[in-house]
Amino acid sequence: MRAPVMAKDDLEHFLSREFPQAFHPESGILIEHVEHGGCRVRLAYHARHIRPGGTISGPAMMMLADFALYVAVLSAIGPVALAVTINLNINFLRRPAQRDILAEARILKLGKRLAVMEVHMFSDGMDEPIAHVTSTYSIPPETRG
Amino acid sequence: MRAPVMAKDDLEHFLSREFPQAFHPESGILIEHVEHGGCRVRLAYHARHIRPGGTISGPAMMMLADFALYVAVLSAIGPVALAVTINLNINFLRRPAQRDILAEARILKLGKRLAVMEVHMFSDGMDEPIAHVTSTYSIPPETRG
Amino acid sequence: MRAPVMAKDDLEHFLSREFPQAFHPESGILIEHVEHGGCRVRLAYHARHIRPGGTISGPAMMMLADFALYVAVLSAIGPVALAVTINLNINFLRRPAQRDILAEARILKLGKRLAVMEVHMFSDGMDEPIAHVTSTYSIPPETRG
Amino acid sequence: MRAPVMAKDDLEHFLSREFPQAFHPESGILIEHVEHGGCRVRLAYHARHIRPGGTISGPAMMMLADFALYVAVLSAIGPVALAVTINLNINFLRRPAQRDILAEARILKLGKRLAVMEVHMFSDGMDEPIAHVTSTYSIPPETRG
Repeated sequence: MRAPVMAKDDLEHFLSREFPQAFHPESGILIEHVEHGGCRVRLAYHARHIRPGGTISGPAMMMLADFALYVAVLSAIGPVALAVTINLNINFLRRPAQRDILAEARILKLGKRLAVMEVHMFSDGMDEPIAHVTSTYSIPPETRG
Repeated sequence: MRAPVMAKDDLEHFLSREFPQAFHPESGILIEHVEHGGCRVRLAYHARHIRPGGTISGPAMMMLADFALYVAVLSAIGPVALAVTINLNINFLRRPAQRDILAEARILKLGKRLAVMEVHMFSDGMDEPIAHVTSTYSIPPETRG
Repeated sequence: MRAPVMAKDDLEHFLSREFPQAFHPESGILIEHVEHGGCRVRLAYHARHIRPGGTISGPAMMMLADFALYVAVLSAIGPVALAVTINLNINFLRRPAQRDILAEARILKLGKRLAVMEVHMFSDGMDEPIAHVTSTYSIPPETRG
Repeated sequence: MRAPVMAKDDLEHFLSREFPQAFHPESGILIEHVEHGGCRVRLAYHARHIRPGGTISGPAMMMLADFALYVAVLSAIGPVALAVTINLNINFLRRPAQRDILAEARILKLGKRLAVMEVHMFSDGMDEPIAHVTSTYSIPPETRG
C-alpha cells in the first residue's frame, strides 16, 4: 500500500482550517483511515441527520460522500483547495440502520485534469452497502502541470 | 397549468411536521411556487452553507435539490412520506454567486412505480444554471395502485 | 440564435470522414438541425435496432445520444476530433414507439476544459420524452487555450 | 459462490432466441463466466467497433455494458424478458487498448422491484479499468411477487 501524500493528521489540520463548516468537533465526521488514493470516513448517528423513521437522511449521506471524495483526492495530490466536484452520481441501495455510517472512497482514475472516484457506504457493522457513489473532480492546471 | 395535488400551504404544513430537520424557520429554505409536477424553491445565502471563497457548498446544493425533488413529487401524488430517492445525479456547472440559490424541479415521467425528475439550479437573478440534477424516486405500491 | 461554428454541411463532411462507422448512408442517422451549441438528429426506425416487441434498443438510443452530443460540441468549438466523453448518464423514461427517434442536444455549460450537455429524446411526432441524457466532454487543451 | 438461476448454456440459448440483434455468432460478444448476480462478458476487437485512432467506440462499450447488466439480472432472477433498464451512468476512465474488452457485472442490490448493478470494464490483459458503469433495472411485478 502506497503512503498518502497527506497523512491523517495533516488532513485533519488542513480540513479544520479550510472547511470548518464540514469538519469540526461537532460535525460528527471522523477520518478513520487514509491511504494513497483512498480513505474510510465515519458519520456519527446524530439527531440532526435523522429522518422520520429514524434513518439518516439522503442529504447527510451525500454530504458524507462528498467529504470522503475530497479526502481521497487530497490523499493523492496534496492540499489543493481548488479541486472541485464536477459530477456526483449516487444510488441509494438500502435503508440505513440506526447506526453510524461508514464511507469508503477510492480513486478509479487519477489523470492530469480529472480524478474519477467511487464510494461504497455502509451502516456500521453491516456487510451490505447502503449506497454507492461515483464522482468526477476537476484538478486545477497549476497543481499537476 | 394543472393545479397541484397539494397547494403551497399544505406542503409547508406537511413538510414542517414530517421533515422538521430539513424544513423549519431557520433552515433558510422557502417554497416559492408549486404547480402539478413542478416547483421552485429557494435557499437563503446563509453563513452555514458557505465554503471558503464565499460560495455555497456542494452538499448544501444537493440538499436543496433533494428538497425540490420531494416537493415536486408531493405536488403530483400527494402526501406520501414513503416515496424514496433511488438515484440522484448532479452536474456542477458554474461557481455559485454570493447569493441565494433557486432550484426549479419538474417531473419528466410519472409512472406507477417510479418518478423521474430534473432540477435546474441558479444563483438568484442570474440566467446561467449553476447545476443540473436528474433523479429517480420509487413510489410505494399502496399509493398508486 | 447564434450561428454554429460548423454548419450542417461541414459537420456532415467531417463526420463522414472521421466517423464513418457511426455516420454513413446506411447508418440511419441524419442531422436535421444545427445551431451554436445545439442540434437535432434523427435515427431511422431500422430493423437492426429493434428489440423483441418492436421498440428501438437501449444501446441504439445511447449511440444516438452520443452522436447528438458530439455534433453539439462540434457546433460550438469546431472540428476537434479529440474531444472525448468522460461521463454519460441516461434515464429511460418511456418505451419508444415503433417510429424514428429524435434527439435534441444542447450545451448547458461550455468551459475551457469541459462541456456539459443534455439531450432530450422523443419518438417522432410524440410530445413526451422517451429518454433524458446528461453528459460531460473533456476538451483538449490545445483547442481552447 | 452461489449457483446462477440460469447457467451459461441456458443464458446463451435464451439470449440467442430473445435478443438475436445483440447476441449472435457474428456479434463478437461472448459470455465467459456466470455466477449468481454476476458475470464476465467479452467483446472481440472487431473492425466495426473501431474509432479513428484504433480504439473501441463509446457506444460499443455502452452496448457491452448493457449486455453484461442484462446477463447479471438473468443470472439472479431467471428468464425475464421484461426487465428494463431505467438508468445507466458510465464513466470513461482510460482510452481502451487495441484489444478485446472485458466487462464484469455484479448486482449491488436486488430488491423486489429494482436491481442496482455495477460494471467494471477492462482491455483484455490489463489491470486498470477503462470504464465504470452503474445501472438500475426495473423488475416487472409478476416476476418477483
